Amino acid sequence: MTTGVRRRMGVEERKQQLIGVALELFSHRSPDEVSIDEIAAAAGISRPLVYHYFPGKQSLYEAALGRAADELADRFLEPPEGPLGARLLRVMGRFFDFVEEHGPGFSALMRGGPAVGSSTANAMIDGVRQAAYEQIINHLGVQDPPARLELVVRSWVSLAESTALLWLDGRRIPRSDLEMQLVHDFAALAAVSAAYDQEMAEVVLRVLSQEPADGPFGELLTRLAALAPAVPPQRRL
Amino acid sequence: MTTGVRRRMGVEERKQQLIGVALELFSHRSPDEVSIDEIAAAAGISRPLVYHYFPGKQSLYEAALGRAADELADRFLEPPEGPLGARLLRVMGRFFDFVEEHGPGFSALMRGGPAVGSSTANAMIDGVRQAAYEQIINHLGVQDPPARLELVVRSWVSLAESTALLWLDGRRIPRSDLEMQLVHDFAALAAVSAAYDQEMAEVVLRVLSQEPADGPFGELLTRLAALAPAVPPQRRL
Repeated sequence: MTTGVRRRMGVEERKQQLIGVALELFSHRSPDEVSIDEIAAAAGISRPLVYHYFPGKQSLYEAALGRAADELADRFLEPPEGPLGARLLRVMGRFFDFVEEHGPGFSALMRGGPAVGSSTANAMIDGVRQAAYEQIINHLGVQDPPARLELVVRSWVSLAESTALLWLDGRRIPRSDLEMQLVHDFAALAAVSAAYDQEMAEVVLRVLSQEPADGPFGELLTRLAALAPAVPPQRRL
Repeated sequence: MTTGVRRRMGVEERKQQLIGVALELFSHRSPDEVSIDEIAAAAGISRPLVYHYFPGKQSLYEAALGRAADELADRFLEPPEGPLGARLLRVMGRFFDFVEEHGPGFSALMRGGPAVGSSTANAMIDGVRQAAYEQIINHLGVQDPPARLELVVRSWVSLAESTALLWLDGRRIPRSDLEMQLVHDFAALAAVSAAYDQEMAEVVLRVLSQEPADGPFGELLTRLAALAPAVPPQRRL
């Protein structure tokens, strides 16, 4: 497959190059605005040759999405060591790195649009969500997650997505604040669920009992306690 | 426009009938699985006549989505009277009514898929999100929402969407529990933001100071306080 002067790269190598070029372009502009001509020019090959490797823009788009999805799922990997709040905060840092690197591509993907919304693309996005869910359940050390825990974790994953999208739209709040806020949001959503369910209360109390007072969860409790005196006495915690 | 034996209905009336028939079918099965033939049969007219009113399935789908979007936005309307927690709980009841009535249609729409993801459909969904956002900001009595309040409200709207979708997928948690939980989630996300931002703290404390101790927010505080003694002393609120 490596005959000819213009095709020094092997098929797989060329495909990976095109995917990399596409992802680079999608990190600056929405995939809808990037043409195959531009991808060909950036890769230094002809438009027909791009179509030789990818029969249409959709297939190149999906291949690029596949690599980005794998890369994002890899960033969720965190050694099961130390307090959970600190682990989640490190993952949030890598998640926002990814969001920042892939800006317009991430935004277009998650908001849906003419070039996305295919069942292949949706399945890949759901795969990333599932990877995030499974990582968190593993870190929590839960074997058979009860329905309410599954709901808390999955709905928090969607909260993290929407928070990242809202951040990209203007970046009016420092991303480090949002990384910490999402860790706190996780604790808050779990606490709300625990307030009404014994099974959730056991999970939350077990996690909290292992958190240091100066970790993300401990700091949140200190700050909330500082707010409490301003609430009228009959409503104070 | 009402000439002929088979077309007793006016154009607009017939269109509205077809939209109603489509929404009824979408409430039992995903729009992808519903054919124009079925819609024609359910409406008691021929397939070509359906195409006379709607040039393709996509245009009928979008018209149906438009009506559903208007209907959902109407359900967010709530008189600005009484405690905020109770107002939000009533809206959540009507939101889950809508989700339950439109089950598969709502699910297919929000998850995206082959038949959706058009820019028209996305714009209508964003319109409903915007309506929800504006209602909440109005009820909070805020004129110029700071960035962090906007983030809390918009990300909570997406949390409500994902919670409803997760509920539809198996209905393993009673919907009334989730309606209350979402009200509590709103309070929790706002409190997290308030713990790190003075402007948010003012909004949250103003709202809390007007809430009765036996309302949804007051009850949450009581229950969280009951959890606290189980947490090691240095981390207690």
